[in-house]
Amino acid sequence: MSEPLIVLCEPQMGENIGAVARAMLNCALTRLCLVNPRDGWPNEKAVAMAAGADVVLENAVVCANLEEALAGQHFVLATTARPRDMVKPILTPEKAIAVIEPRIHAGQQCAIVFGGERSGLSNDHLSLVDAIISIPINPQFSSLNLAQAALIMGYEWYRQSLSAKENGYIIPIDIHQPAPKEAMHHLFLHLEKALDAAGFFTTPQMRPNMVRNLRNLLQRSAATGQEIRSFHGIITALSKMGVAHNPQETDS
Amino acid sequence: MSEPLIVLCEPQMGENIGAVARAMLNCALTRLCLVNPRDGWPNEKAVAMAAGADVVLENAVVCANLEEALAGQHFVLATTARPRDMVKPILTPEKAIAVIEPRIHAGQQCAIVFGGERSGLSNDHLSLVDAIISIPINPQFSSLNLAQAALIMGYEWYRQSLSAKENGYIIPIDIHQPAPKEAMHHLFLHLEKALDAAGFFTTPQMRPNMVRNLRNLLQRSAATGQEIRSFHGIITALSKMGVAHNPQETDS
Repeated sequence: MSEPLIVLCEPQMGENIGAVARAMLNCALTRLCLVNPRDGWPNEKAVAMAAGADVVLENAVVCANLEEALAGQHFVLATTARPRDMVKPILTPEKAIAVIEPRIHAGQQCAIVFGGERSGLSNDHLSLVDAIISIPINPQFSSLNLAQAALIMGYEWYRQSLSAKENGYIIPIDIHQPAPKEAMHHLFLHLEKALDAAGFFTTPQMRPNMVRNLRNLLQRSAATGQEIRSFHGIITALSKMGVAHNPQETDS
Repeated sequence: MSEPLIVLCEPQMGENIGAVARAMLNCALTRLCLVNPRDGWPNEKAVAMAAGADVVLENAVVCANLEEALAGQHFVLATTARPRDMVKPILTPEKAIAVIEPRIHAGQQCAIVFGGERSGLSNDHLSLVDAIISIPINPQFSSLNLAQAALIMGYEWYRQSLSAKENGYIIPIDIHQPAPKEAMHHLFLHLEKALDAAGFFTTPQMRPNMVRNLRNLLQRSAATGQEIRSFHGIITALSKMGVAHNPQETDS
């Protein structure tokens, strides 16, 4: 059966990776991806804490960065405790699984991203995801560890996929297939390069924030492969115009 | 706000008690009861693992046995992984909270019991509870630890109590107030003593199992205080008859 990919982005302690693997397998989740784990991989402490969930650790994929981890994914969610200054849907765990379950059943690749223990996910990381999951928790004591957060998402997955199996799958007809994430990442780079060449970023200081805002905006479009190809065409066409003109003029 | 009492029945490692306290406070649960903790109480390892949830540990109540822990409770659920040969409702975590949430809002005391790490809950323990909670979990890897089980129940509690707050409480009108558990326990003892005197148990070997079956049956009645007083009256009346007659004859 198909299932979401669990991505740990820059995890630190092997013990926590092992505890996540255990919680995953408890909920019949087996696909784990580690982005740049601090203490290297494989990790003996992870094996000790996995308490028998070795199959999850053995099949774990290690990636250098989040873009690489998300290549091939169609829809990506990230858990984060802190609300960010960002226009992105915020879902409860229940709603998040209700959104990905029918997508997965329709053959799409979906991922759930968890940040590292200390610093969580940066705004750059979040600009690569479609929606944010906020786990409802006591605001006076909200320090959930990595394995607890993974268990809650896994529990919702297992609960809802059992119930879908029992009640029959309902696939909403309005789910279109977004392009895999690497196509979106290429589009980001193409656009940003074109904007650099066009002198769009008037100061280097403003660039990172503007790039994030643009990425979030494009991300929200959930564009199909065809739409992304059209976007590339537009950027190329505009860039060629820009070469012949003064960029200051074409920008206005 | 009122909340369920969390009862750990014969827990072993202090670390696990601490991890439960942390998971509880994450979900705004603060009332913990420990039945006969193996390593005594207070316990330094529990404090270390609680990661700041000290208030839960400091207010924890220690009891000698499960009957004592459940005195004053009106409705009691127990989590157990193993299906038992016992006529008792089995609920999912979602349904379990849906059952106790309106009871608590109506002023009833409700408890959730978790067994110890190694042996879980015995059939004698289970004969004291109203219903069983079975957490849906991968049957190929179903070793949930104590804190994970507590987190899932806490998460369901927090999620549903938030939602009840937002949507308005709905109290089903058919919730009657069962007698507190100590009244039920007294009834058990009265009946069993009367049955002993009447020679009801023909061999000592059969007694424990028959006692459990009777307790489960009475438990299912969820009797009110008035109904329990009537039961006592019936037992007393029948016992008096038995004194005058041959017990063998009155029993047939």
